[in-house]
Amino acid sequence: MVQHSPPLDRTFSALADGHRRQILDRLGEGPVSISQLATPLGMSLPGVLKHIRALEEAHLIETRKQGRTRWCRLGERPLDDAAAWIDERRNQWIRRLHRFEGSLEDTKAADQ
Amino acid sequence: MVQHSPPLDRTFSALADGHRRQILDRLGEGPVSISQLATPLGMSLPGVLKHIRALEEAHLIETRKQGRTRWCRLGERPLDDAAAWIDERRNQWIRRLHRFEGSLEDTKAADQ
Repeated sequence: MVQHSPPLDRTFSALADGHRRQILDRLGEGPVSISQLATPLGMSLPGVLKHIRALEEAHLIETRKQGRTRWCRLGERPLDDAAAWIDERRNQWIRRLHRFEGSLEDTKAADQ
Repeated sequence: MVQHSPPLDRTFSALADGHRRQILDRLGEGPVSISQLATPLGMSLPGVLKHIRALEEAHLIETRKQGRTRWCRLGERPLDDAAAWIDERRNQWIRRLHRFEGSLEDTKAADQ
């Protein structure tokens, strides 16, 4: 199991900010330009650009320049790695809990 | 939908570090003392304590002092909130993709 995974560091770090999660939600409705993102967030263009860079470095979104406008859209399968990491742990912990509960019941049955 | 959620900020931020994810994996096998955590990680006690604090503030783990030893264990349902946030987005995006593909097929059928 690879523990020191810079891509996962970048993904979770990018998700650790409400504005960046809000940008992902907006892009979930379809591609938008950076200035279209800035207005509803009540942020300056440089402020949005900083978040866009963090999301792009984590491959959560993609940007593309068309003329003078930079468009943003969701990356390809953007949350799969984070979901896989989390789901693997939750499943392991649930299995361990069931094993523990099972051995507890065995002990109780043996005591009776 | 609550966007600015400090608890989610703390959770994702705590997960954005390989050492902290390694600590969660170790605690998935059962409770350990902080010094037992430090040795296999090759870290100093103050270094581990810093990570422990970040994980504890995110409610991913719990600690308890017994005599001179501080024990750590996983929090209760520690990754549920992060998993719920991620799953909700992935489901929304997949539904949107299916709707988009459906309307594309309708357009194609109308053109024929």
